[in-house]
Amino acid sequence: MKVLAADIGGTSTRLIYAEVDNNKKDILAENIYYSYQYENFNCLFDVFVAENNINEKINKACFAVAGPVKSGEASVTNLPWSMTEAQLSRSLNIPRVKLINDFIAVAHGVAEIEDKDLVILQQGTECPVNKDAAVVGAGTGLGASHLIWNNGCFLPKASEAGHAGFAPCNQLQCELLNWLQQQHTHVSVEMLLSGRGLKTIYQFLHEIKHIPESLIVKKTMRETDPAQVISEYALAEKDLLCQRTLDCFIEIYGAAAGNIVLHYYPVSKLYIAGGIAAKIKNRMQRTCFIDALINKGPMSSNMKELTVKLVSQEKTGLYGALSVAAGI
Amino acid sequence: MKVLAADIGGTSTRLIYAEVDNNKKDILAENIYYSYQYENFNCLFDVFVAENNINEKINKACFAVAGPVKSGEASVTNLPWSMTEAQLSRSLNIPRVKLINDFIAVAHGVAEIEDKDLVILQQGTECPVNKDAAVVGAGTGLGASHLIWNNGCFLPKASEAGHAGFAPCNQLQCELLNWLQQQHTHVSVEMLLSGRGLKTIYQFLHEIKHIPESLIVKKTMRETDPAQVISEYALAEKDLLCQRTLDCFIEIYGAAAGNIVLHYYPVSKLYIAGGIAAKIKNRMQRTCFIDALINKGPMSSNMKELTVKLVSQEKTGLYGALSVAAGI
Repeated sequence: MKVLAADIGGTSTRLIYAEVDNNKKDILAENIYYSYQYENFNCLFDVFVAENNINEKINKACFAVAGPVKSGEASVTNLPWSMTEAQLSRSLNIPRVKLINDFIAVAHGVAEIEDKDLVILQQGTECPVNKDAAVVGAGTGLGASHLIWNNGCFLPKASEAGHAGFAPCNQLQCELLNWLQQQHTHVSVEMLLSGRGLKTIYQFLHEIKHIPESLIVKKTMRETDPAQVISEYALAEKDLLCQRTLDCFIEIYGAAAGNIVLHYYPVSKLYIAGGIAAKIKNRMQRTCFIDALINKGPMSSNMKELTVKLVSQEKTGLYGALSVAAGI
Repeated sequence: MKVLAADIGGTSTRLIYAEVDNNKKDILAENIYYSYQYENFNCLFDVFVAENNINEKINKACFAVAGPVKSGEASVTNLPWSMTEAQLSRSLNIPRVKLINDFIAVAHGVAEIEDKDLVILQQGTECPVNKDAAVVGAGTGLGASHLIWNNGCFLPKASEAGHAGFAPCNQLQCELLNWLQQQHTHVSVEMLLSGRGLKTIYQFLHEIKHIPESLIVKKTMRETDPAQVISEYALAEKDLLCQRTLDCFIEIYGAAAGNIVLHYYPVSKLYIAGGIAAKIKNRMQRTCFIDALINKGPMSSNMKELTVKLVSQEKTGLYGALSVAAGI
């Protein structure tokens, strides 16, 4: 049986085409595209089909979308695409189409992930009774989901936790919030924990905290993705402003991941997914992230019992969507 | 069959004893006690049994506890009580005992509540497909739960969302957070959305924002529960400091309830439970609460579609625990 899956984000869209037979998945084609270069998903689908000479009928498809999915309808945050299962099924000529939230897909992917694709950030107390987990990940936006173990199988629940208000955990972060409140009526945690969030923190530390900006970083940021430039200069320890930006980002990330865990508590595991963590995994392994995560007053001892794993496989959402597609 | 249920909070504990026959519940005894006057739950249970001349064997019991419940064990936040199902079953001589989180109990109670015990704060768009709901409530602490509709029945999930970091949504709230950060390493949203939170906001507005304190309010607060004094003077519009305190509290409450909803989104309903909302329900019906709730950037239009109901029945958690007890 031929199955298609996609992980559709504000920046990029990954597509995978596979032959599925019982539990065996044979990958026939896989590509990544810049989402914003396409008017809608159908245009991108046509390119994928043409590039890979797909002639056979596709039986089932699952598309994971960065945005809320309600009653088979989804709109992609940061993209002008709106999609419905019925319309996609008709226009793509695929009998069964399912739309799911992108972090539901990551949750499905995480349930099947191999140890080699995981980095342990905190080894907690194993709890045989409670298998529930939280999944959090910063990329183009900040996603989160709750993986609930119910009657012998996982029930993943979506969220829009990235749009919740930003909760600063020290004076510097309070100043950052104050500065952002002068520009926006609502300051979400995603405004900081995302690619553009890295740029925002960088600007704040430069403009308000007067950390000098190097000319070479400034120039490189004009030519390529600022978030990537900041991460690379910070990891190479070549630029103070970039290093401070990444330190601040990681501290906010730890605290926010802890806050999300508390909304789903009791859980015994936390997976840190998303494109950014995988790229800065060496920094995520320092104590700063976990220190911020466990600093939760009377809940700190519970947070220390949590097993925290970083997902270094960036295609977890895509593989999760493929599993869902195979099962519909 | 004789069934016992309790709603155990940091301030008070409610107990109910009933004859349950199929779906019919016949209440035989019901009392409320100050929790902190008892060394442990067994002492309080003995008083309840003696006061109500309960001689018959109790078959089943469910105790809702303000705090996390893991593997049949619970510790009550703000009380030195720790409880396990096995120990309670033995010592109280009740064959089947279940411990649940207090907001799981409220979620069960809300699923059965009558319209007369609800006040509509926002009429949303009814969604026949999505029956999921969020429950939020400030009392001694801030509780929350997620009511998930799965395979034809509700699956309520607990949370410790009250311990998540406080996310200020304007400059005044940023100053409040900054002031609290000088005293605590972690400032949770519960530190503001609780009885003691009202007192904290009052102190901040007086000490830092220099709103004068009236002598009569100061004196009354020394003699009785400060949160109650603040609410009463604010509702009677008799004292500026109390009024500003309640306004600030309600604005923080709206924003925090919205943040919790986003963690469980998509949901179609939000129930505002807890002891405080019921006491200040006239103020909760003003636009301030809902305005703060729906101010969520790109998610604002989704928040406007939410149906928001205030639970005016303070015994919802107790009745929820009774339903759980009847079903075990």
